[in-house]
Amino acid sequence: MEELTSFAKRRGFIFQASEIYGGIGGFWDLGPYGVELAQNIKQSWWRHFVNRNFNVVGLDSTIIQHPRLWQASGHVDTFVDPMVDCKACKHRFRADHVAGEDTNDLDKLATALADKACPNCGEKGTFTEPRQFNMMFKTHVGPVEDTGSTTYLRPETAGGIFAQYDNVRETTRAKLPFGIAQIGKAFRNEITPGDFIFRLRELTQMELEVFVKPDEAEKWYEFWKQYCMEWVQSIGLKADHIRLHDHADDERAHYAAASVDIQFEYPFGFKELYGIANRTDYDLSAHAKESGKDLSYFDEETKQRYVPYVIEPSVGVERLLMAVLLDAYDEEQVDGDTRVVLRFTPEIAPVKIAVLPLSKRPELSELSREIFKEIAGDWRVEYDETQSIGRRYRRQDEIGTPYCVTIDFDSLEDKAVTVRDRDSMQQERIAISELKSYLTQKLS
Amino acid sequence: MEELTSFAKRRGFIFQASEIYGGIGGFWDLGPYGVELAQNIKQSWWRHFVNRNFNVVGLDSTIIQHPRLWQASGHVDTFVDPMVDCKACKHRFRADHVAGEDTNDLDKLATALADKACPNCGEKGTFTEPRQFNMMFKTHVGPVEDTGSTTYLRPETAGGIFAQYDNVRETTRAKLPFGIAQIGKAFRNEITPGDFIFRLRELTQMELEVFVKPDEAEKWYEFWKQYCMEWVQSIGLKADHIRLHDHADDERAHYAAASVDIQFEYPFGFKELYGIANRTDYDLSAHAKESGKDLSYFDEETKQRYVPYVIEPSVGVERLLMAVLLDAYDEEQVDGDTRVVLRFTPEIAPVKIAVLPLSKRPELSELSREIFKEIAGDWRVEYDETQSIGRRYRRQDEIGTPYCVTIDFDSLEDKAVTVRDRDSMQQERIAISELKSYLTQKLS
Repeated sequence: MEELTSFAKRRGFIFQASEIYGGIGGFWDLGPYGVELAQNIKQSWWRHFVNRNFNVVGLDSTIIQHPRLWQASGHVDTFVDPMVDCKACKHRFRADHVAGEDTNDLDKLATALADKACPNCGEKGTFTEPRQFNMMFKTHVGPVEDTGSTTYLRPETAGGIFAQYDNVRETTRAKLPFGIAQIGKAFRNEITPGDFIFRLRELTQMELEVFVKPDEAEKWYEFWKQYCMEWVQSIGLKADHIRLHDHADDERAHYAAASVDIQFEYPFGFKELYGIANRTDYDLSAHAKESGKDLSYFDEETKQRYVPYVIEPSVGVERLLMAVLLDAYDEEQVDGDTRVVLRFTPEIAPVKIAVLPLSKRPELSELSREIFKEIAGDWRVEYDETQSIGRRYRRQDEIGTPYCVTIDFDSLEDKAVTVRDRDSMQQERIAISELKSYLTQKLS
Repeated sequence: MEELTSFAKRRGFIFQASEIYGGIGGFWDLGPYGVELAQNIKQSWWRHFVNRNFNVVGLDSTIIQHPRLWQASGHVDTFVDPMVDCKACKHRFRADHVAGEDTNDLDKLATALADKACPNCGEKGTFTEPRQFNMMFKTHVGPVEDTGSTTYLRPETAGGIFAQYDNVRETTRAKLPFGIAQIGKAFRNEITPGDFIFRLRELTQMELEVFVKPDEAEKWYEFWKQYCMEWVQSIGLKADHIRLHDHADDERAHYAAASVDIQFEYPFGFKELYGIANRTDYDLSAHAKESGKDLSYFDEETKQRYVPYVIEPSVGVERLLMAVLLDAYDEEQVDGDTRVVLRFTPEIAPVKIAVLPLSKRPELSELSREIFKEIAGDWRVEYDETQSIGRRYRRQDEIGTPYCVTIDFDSLEDKAVTVRDRDSMQQERIAISELKSYLTQKLS
């Protein structure tokens, strides 16, 4: 993990947020390659989950919403983690983590904590009674700070989707089944964030809420489970690093009819990557009750009126980005040296092409910049003219650039360039006039 | 404005946030077409400001950062608006708005307010003394709510860029001039939000910070001013609806050497759309001082060491989206009816193509879905099989879809479809085998 964190910083993928001010726990910034990688993951998700399905549309709801929305969703009352303090050293902990019990039951936790030592100071018998801590970040809207103006940063993007369900259905004239997708930030005031970008206080979710006829919910649950499994592999996760974990009755929310995690094998074990749940009519019913608005659906085929069921596939961009980085990382021996290469798929690679003039001589720079202008735009292309060509190739390998285009002095004569493949390291001479269509074919 | 708000809701572009809970002032959600429009604007910006410039890279810093970052940037002390209460009706107002004076000077405002009536209850002489209100949203990080854990939602994305300037420079080995770009949410607790999505409490910024040699700052300021002017026109703003407004000495921040707004003619007058400023070495010097970290640059050519100057072009996605909507909107008379059409450029149009089977007959549906699968993916394509074809064309006109593809019974025989152009309403018969390349050419 330390190796990954240090590699991700050194290569410009992930920096500690506010690092120059000593950092801030649970917040990480995406550097120049991290932001491109995240963008490519989000665009791939949108392409597969929205664009390729003719009954899925998008939405972008705000992070701050009316507080009653989080009352309806249950987050005000139940989005809590058990917390405990050490009276000796004043440190605060997740009670379930210290107790080693995967439960939210305060009595059980108190019993389990009785003979545990404080992970910070080592004292025993110094824990307070465990109590519940609400993980939503609070803030105030408007110039008056009182309880009437208290609201929250959303703990998930789904709430905004449910609140706009009826506006979306009406303006797009959608019939069941149909889905609403959203990508956006969510905030969770974790008591102990950690594991690099795995447990964050500020994260990015990609959530799809599919509204279905109640008697078709099981079918669509299976469909989307399969769809998610295929997609995570399409962006580079290895089949033997992912597995399905079905939730037993006591693991899933009381309203869910079924739920499953796609787990990924992180350095700290198999952990949740993607959650898929059959949430029944819980969400729409809860919002209908709290808002007084009828959110039922009139089925023109059967002439019945009912509240749609919801199938929810939900994933965090940062957990996915971390998994993609881990599975792309490879080392191999080349001519007695270790070559580090990130074997990203072309779709996901942060930089698609590097343009590398062999020297800084003006005639090469000029031609190289012309080539850059010709191919940069939809593709992220890097221009690099410093250091030896061998070092520049290795640098591109380390950020996973699929193709390097080298412009040499012969290029001025034969109007051709050398294209080097990241994985095979094979080089091919390509006419400049053919370059764009050659790369288009290679990258698609 | 009411017309625009109602049109934007009816056509699925923009909904009031938390509408089912009565809404929340200053927050608006993007509906299915709004989210696509905003995504296209963001992607166009990234393409032009990042990808097409070989010395610009991206960043994605978190919304919540260490509070000292906002101390250094000056926001804790000076990101304030003057506020005043009416003692009679208890309403709260922006003091400068009620006074009709564009100033932050509390004495001047108090004088100007003396003979003003309350805009809510109409009483005179009922105003409190004006005082400063800090517009940053406050929150607490971690499980302890005290001053030590207080932090803010970022009021602009630029701060995160300055804090990571040195990490980015080092990991990309960038030389001056180079730029760091970021797209992300920012939050401003406006006392009186309004004008639809013009003055929001939650907004999306696209900011570029270009780090330059101090003696080249003026040149790059002019360059980026021009670049921004060209780009806003490329996404559909009309030349006679935009103008440059140079800031006089008393209009710009004390540290800025020069600043200019690109203004757009909104229904409520010419207002700021895009701000471009020469911020000198103010930001990096302030962060160097607060963090104790040396942020100076060693110039290998001149062997000098100095703090880079910053040129900042900064724009809000929602203001731009509103301008694009206004300039795309058109009404024309067709056969005695009024045709409403949004004349978006193909790059910006939320839906690129509509696939419209002439009837719901299974053989047409099957062929139409095959065509949908063939062309959907990178393009956002809508599939619509209900209502008359004329009404479906008009519906696509109202969301600005450049091309409609109609599949009729002849299509089963001649393996061809009708493609209708949004602007000319001309129809052309195209072989299905040629459709994708035909549309690719039309949309590029």
